[in-house]
Amino acid sequence: MSREPQARVAPRSRVLLTDHPWPDYDVERDILAAAGFELVAGPGKASPSEEVETLVASADPVAILTCWAPVSAKAIATPADLRIVARMGVGLDNIDVAAAAARGAWVTNVPDYCVEEVSDHALALILAWLRGVVVLDREVKQGLWQPGGARVGRFRLLTVGLVGLGRIGRVTARKLSGFGCRVIAADPAPQGDVPGVETVSLDVLQAESDVIVLHVPLLETTRHLVGDAFIAGCRKKPLLVNVSRGGIVDNDALLRGLDGGRLAGAALDVIEGEPSPPRALVDRPDVIVTPHVAFLSPASLLELRRRSSEEVVRVLSGEPPQFPCNRPAAR
Amino acid sequence: MSREPQARVAPRSRVLLTDHPWPDYDVERDILAAAGFELVAGPGKASPSEEVETLVASADPVAILTCWAPVSAKAIATPADLRIVARMGVGLDNIDVAAAAARGAWVTNVPDYCVEEVSDHALALILAWLRGVVVLDREVKQGLWQPGGARVGRFRLLTVGLVGLGRIGRVTARKLSGFGCRVIAADPAPQGDVPGVETVSLDVLQAESDVIVLHVPLLETTRHLVGDAFIAGCRKKPLLVNVSRGGIVDNDALLRGLDGGRLAGAALDVIEGEPSPPRALVDRPDVIVTPHVAFLSPASLLELRRRSSEEVVRVLSGEPPQFPCNRPAAR
Repeated sequence: MSREPQARVAPRSRVLLTDHPWPDYDVERDILAAAGFELVAGPGKASPSEEVETLVASADPVAILTCWAPVSAKAIATPADLRIVARMGVGLDNIDVAAAAARGAWVTNVPDYCVEEVSDHALALILAWLRGVVVLDREVKQGLWQPGGARVGRFRLLTVGLVGLGRIGRVTARKLSGFGCRVIAADPAPQGDVPGVETVSLDVLQAESDVIVLHVPLLETTRHLVGDAFIAGCRKKPLLVNVSRGGIVDNDALLRGLDGGRLAGAALDVIEGEPSPPRALVDRPDVIVTPHVAFLSPASLLELRRRSSEEVVRVLSGEPPQFPCNRPAAR
Repeated sequence: MSREPQARVAPRSRVLLTDHPWPDYDVERDILAAAGFELVAGPGKASPSEEVETLVASADPVAILTCWAPVSAKAIATPADLRIVARMGVGLDNIDVAAAAARGAWVTNVPDYCVEEVSDHALALILAWLRGVVVLDREVKQGLWQPGGARVGRFRLLTVGLVGLGRIGRVTARKLSGFGCRVIAADPAPQGDVPGVETVSLDVLQAESDVIVLHVPLLETTRHLVGDAFIAGCRKKPLLVNVSRGGIVDNDALLRGLDGGRLAGAALDVIEGEPSPPRALVDRPDVIVTPHVAFLSPASLLELRRRSSEEVVRVLSGEPPQFPCNRPAAR
């Protein structure tokens, strides 16, 4: 980034919080207020695009803090002086990043606040499937006690394939290392070797994995990455684990893969169509579902809220952001 | 063991398989037949003590292979020439070990066939609880999608206390090491330091653990080890994980601990009263249950059947056993 720091915006300028899927916005308000800015909060639940645009038009903010609400090109174009759209999360698929750059506004995220949680969650889903925990607990609660019918395995004998070996994939790899399983990874932009991880092509990963974990962001190039062709390349009837974004998996192809015996099961924290995912998928006994909580813990949530609010203060105070995700045009 | 190898028993001598909680006994029969011995198989499901005694009287075996069936002093006294009672498993709580020693018969086990499985299962139960997998999957299947209500945590912030740091505890410790959590262990007979594990007294373990994992055998000294007094010593509202034997936990005390808010939950692969465990315990949403499968996988089961049968052949051929669990009196 070669641009000069911008001038500090005027005190009492407004920051719009488009949505907050947590009960209050005290953390955000207090951090902004301490720096002299006013928080304007939208509803807790994310609104559709048009309603967000109305919110923005009404608040005329210098900064937008968004969790899940879509921040469109129109929303970005509306304010008189917009300096930053700060994502309260990692993925940027709900923000028109290019539109922000074009009008000279930063887009930021908090890429590492939930690395521990998402990798913990990936391991939790793999192990819940491998050791039959969800199915067996359900059976016992229904009055059955059938150890003989349990479908359980030894982790050490498996090959785990990581699609994406970025911040989160690397920590998942570290956590896998204690189990003695083989770990392979495919990453379009490898950031260097990780001890104990074999880098392979996506083709090899599909063919050799007993478990496939998705650790890639949702981009145009990754949308429906797991479709019929991907699943056809799976040779060892793997478990598919998605702790990234629902849109990376084509639900219909996944259903065909499960029905056709090409996949052993799926463990999904994210599903296209959430919060109303297709019942045909989530009701299956060979599918484990959690409702998009892989990022979550009390620690990660506080860190996310604090650090995204601090990023807004930083930019509004004329400093460069800590985690820029675009190169804003000169203003 | 200072005793001399015994003479090889006569060919065609009978080996009694008291029970086999798997569909056939081909593995056992083939290994014994190759060495010249005849397998006599009892029912698949373990019989009560008296029925086992009748089986033994009828077969007059030189060796008894038992999985879950009780092998009493009377059963051990009955055969004309009994050389070995081989446990198809780790724990010896279903065999009168002293009675076998007194009549000059070996008792053996297979202590390491399921080390990977049990430690995998312990991690699976901890993570299923930590990341809410069982509860959240149930909610989603009931039509809910409530990430906001999820009770999930960050593993790194927890202290995990291992009660018992033997073969299995050590491997659990290794698997925990990747998660960055603090690992403490209490063992009455420590076998040496484990990297990254702090050895503490049981009092300290109770007071400081967020998760307590039982990795001790069922002995007179460990029966109901987790009772009211143990639970009263828990200060951080831990999760209790039992992948050892049901008898180590006093079910009534556990219920009181959960109701009184001294424990956050329990994850139990074994429960006193199984295969008909108390409904008051297993039906609770804060209790995760699997039906005594921690030891199980296709790999571990084959290894168990093969190695316990080979141990019988070894002793009947006049060689010392690989895993002796007693010191037989001179015959």
